[in-house]
Amino acid sequence: MRFTSEQPLGDGVLERAFTLDGIPGILWTPATAVASAPVPLILLGHPTLGLRRMYPRLAARARHAAADGFATATVELPGSGDRPRLPVLEQARADLRRAKETGRPVDEEIIDALVLPLVEEAVPEWQAALDALLALPGIGGPVGYSGGVISVGVRLAVVEPRIAAAGLFAGSLVPRVMFEEARRVTVPLHVLLQWDDEGNDRQAALDLFDAFGSQEKSLHANMGGHTGVPQFAGEAAARFFTRHLK
Amino acid sequence: MRFTSEQPLGDGVLERAFTLDGIPGILWTPATAVASAPVPLILLGHPTLGLRRMYPRLAARARHAAADGFATATVELPGSGDRPRLPVLEQARADLRRAKETGRPVDEEIIDALVLPLVEEAVPEWQAALDALLALPGIGGPVGYSGGVISVGVRLAVVEPRIAAAGLFAGSLVPRVMFEEARRVTVPLHVLLQWDDEGNDRQAALDLFDAFGSQEKSLHANMGGHTGVPQFAGEAAARFFTRHLK
Repeated sequence: MRFTSEQPLGDGVLERAFTLDGIPGILWTPATAVASAPVPLILLGHPTLGLRRMYPRLAARARHAAADGFATATVELPGSGDRPRLPVLEQARADLRRAKETGRPVDEEIIDALVLPLVEEAVPEWQAALDALLALPGIGGPVGYSGGVISVGVRLAVVEPRIAAAGLFAGSLVPRVMFEEARRVTVPLHVLLQWDDEGNDRQAALDLFDAFGSQEKSLHANMGGHTGVPQFAGEAAARFFTRHLK
Repeated sequence: MRFTSEQPLGDGVLERAFTLDGIPGILWTPATAVASAPVPLILLGHPTLGLRRMYPRLAARARHAAADGFATATVELPGSGDRPRLPVLEQARADLRRAKETGRPVDEEIIDALVLPLVEEAVPEWQAALDALLALPGIGGPVGYSGGVISVGVRLAVVEPRIAAAGLFAGSLVPRVMFEEARRVTVPLHVLLQWDDEGNDRQAALDLFDAFGSQEKSLHANMGGHTGVPQFAGEAAARFFTRHLK
């Protein structure tokens, strides 16, 4: 892990860009993160729009988390931002666009091709980032995962024992196999669902919530479209992490 | 309204039993409720088990609300507790028991008979209680309604303009006509759903949530059975009332 830039965001929050095996990422640490008293870490998931485009929202989430005493970090997804395109994802996106344009239903093959290669590639990268981040002074466990492509969060929660709690956003298409995988998730979950999210399949989101094996799981459904998560819903998610990671 | 007894509950909370046209009720006021600075009021709904049996849970909810600066009040439901039985309800309960014993599905006629007469009788009584309560020194608006038989809450939210926010508990059978009525609800709503509530029809609860006309509505689904609402879910409901009534 190599830090490439560093800037203070105010209120003692330090933002550091890094690369790890050529993958760009960002780490935000609160003023309270010192070697003698490491703070818990939340991995900030995001959609496949690229870190640059997502930066304002990520930085806002990072500042809120820092105020609650958390370090946060994120890495670029495979095929997103400045990283090389993944032909299989590009093809699946083209198929999805065509299906939508022609009004055809989005079939399971398209959903699988759109999500599963991303999960396969991204999850080991997030795990490698976790190795590097937890080796830094001032960053400790437990670790939370928050938001982004929900299938990435599900897979991480299944395979990565350092993830102690996950806040998931039911806002992307979910391959059928992930419903089986969801049964193997046991960490506490906080799932946000935008009830009238046009781009989201509400019934699939409810089925996925039902499938999770976790003893503690909460679904918070709110109005307001995909990007309209109300402020109070963000605060409830923050309290979830405070409850489980502090 | 005639007060029949009075006892301090500690932390400055005063509990007063009352009767209003022969209907028993309880009022809890925080120490902060003085004539010069009236506090908002939350009506505490409850199931048809009678105030005496529900008292411990009601008093606990009242103490939490008082700590947040709210007065709370409740009245006995028609046909419950020490009030005269309602033959139509008794018949419907017997029919429900028989349907359950014989494994027959609970049909809409039974649900209608079980809930609609209760709604018809109870709602004007809660409105009369509201008249009397708001006339007391130290009690002001805005008014919230919380929990209990969900159809009573829905009807109250539709017909009673003094209700400014409602916290509903998806835990009882809902007559078909209430789904239509739900569309006319416009106040902010906070709906609790116990995901694995054996006695509850989850799909009906989701359909009812979908039907509500309110621009701000949140569904919080949690694990733990009908009476197992987690403490953090109660705290989230309390924050909802603080957000809307303060």
